[in-house]
Amino acid sequence: MNKGSQNIELGEDERLDDLHRNGYKIIQNTKNFCFGIDAVLLSSYAKVMQGEKTIDLGTGTGIIPILLKAKTRGSDFTALEIQEEMATMAKRSVKYNGLEDEIKIMQGDIKGISKVIGRDIFDVVTCNPPYMTFNHGKVNEDMSKAIARHEIKCTLEDVIIESKKLLKVKGRLYLIHRPFRLGEIISKLCKHNLEPKRMRLVHPFVNKEANLVLLECIKGGNSMIKVEPPLIVYEKPQVYTQEVMDIYGY
Amino acid sequence: MNKGSQNIELGEDERLDDLHRNGYKIIQNTKNFCFGIDAVLLSSYAKVMQGEKTIDLGTGTGIIPILLKAKTRGSDFTALEIQEEMATMAKRSVKYNGLEDEIKIMQGDIKGISKVIGRDIFDVVTCNPPYMTFNHGKVNEDMSKAIARHEIKCTLEDVIIESKKLLKVKGRLYLIHRPFRLGEIISKLCKHNLEPKRMRLVHPFVNKEANLVLLECIKGGNSMIKVEPPLIVYEKPQVYTQEVMDIYGY
Repeated sequence: MNKGSQNIELGEDERLDDLHRNGYKIIQNTKNFCFGIDAVLLSSYAKVMQGEKTIDLGTGTGIIPILLKAKTRGSDFTALEIQEEMATMAKRSVKYNGLEDEIKIMQGDIKGISKVIGRDIFDVVTCNPPYMTFNHGKVNEDMSKAIARHEIKCTLEDVIIESKKLLKVKGRLYLIHRPFRLGEIISKLCKHNLEPKRMRLVHPFVNKEANLVLLECIKGGNSMIKVEPPLIVYEKPQVYTQEVMDIYGY
Repeated sequence: MNKGSQNIELGEDERLDDLHRNGYKIIQNTKNFCFGIDAVLLSSYAKVMQGEKTIDLGTGTGIIPILLKAKTRGSDFTALEIQEEMATMAKRSVKYNGLEDEIKIMQGDIKGISKVIGRDIFDVVTCNPPYMTFNHGKVNEDMSKAIARHEIKCTLEDVIIESKKLLKVKGRLYLIHRPFRLGEIISKLCKHNLEPKRMRLVHPFVNKEANLVLLECIKGGNSMIKVEPPLIVYEKPQVYTQEVMDIYGY
């Protein structure tokens, strides 16, 4: 399936990771923010139909559009990343996988992006935003990691406001976030008329608190949400559940 | 433990049900709304410390304060019920169990109740409100059941506004509701500064959607919520999980 070149030059601290889907691989810099289970879960939670236009906000290495290309029938992906170094790396991964026709990496800011590329034009927005505000824990000294984890370049509300502008009416926003901010997340989504329609809590074990939450929101949707079965990550210590094994493609 | 009389006259269609706690029993009319798993779960979710003042809004048969009396160290319960027939039945149950000193049943409306009994005086509010608005399914022809299930006498926002008035600063509201209204529930709680601090989703089976949600909210609390492990009701068809067996006191 991989149309791309098998030859690639990796920079210092870079590695090429297998995504277990379509033979796709991704370049990551071990000194920067590397994708985690969140990106993998979001790419399985989001639904993209054939012909739909999708944008990923704050794409980092480009992991989400590459996985969505593998897992869905979508073939029109835009991915926005503010950090030039990350955007360049994402472009190299897209090229390596031969996906330049399907995934367009843009370097730029989430805030105001609808003024650059247009309003009411996307069917789907995906976002794995920074989880922490400045009240939440120590900010990483490495600026690339800090931007990925803390709301330095944009807040949750910025993401919600811009998603609403980018989406067509009835378009869908897929978000992964930390449950500890759920009060704020749901209040702000409702305030901006991006109605939460499906929610799935992710628990490391069945008897542990949730540490991630997946949301599907519809622009202009009515007020009714489905809380899906819990997604349990581990069967027992270090052993994934079958569902998570399937999501990873192992 | 039961200080009350073992002799009781039951009206037509009434029955006396064992609560499996302290020997307490409750009178229910099989033609009216009878308590379900919701009341039992809420009474185990709510925390009442020794010396705390508690009010249950829309108490029906009085099930929640009677169970709270059995399960917690609280001994100062007020319980409000708008339907005179239900309030009278609740009073008879309180008397039967010899709890007149601990549980005071009041007949009256939730709306405006803080004007009658005072503001900022309760440590705890509990409520198992009607789940449905008029957009949600057929309204029962029996008025007693209709009032218990549909927002005829008060809305969710009425409950939230009045709870906020009744509670002291840092007082706690415990609520059970349907997850399909979670967007609205969380938005309205946050709007009225009753911050959701703990949430537990109840799933009939581990691989099924949630059909109930338990919430602990703090008046004036900061914005940070803990999403607890899912509460699973059935191990397999017709067999409760151990946790639910314990909650019922079987």
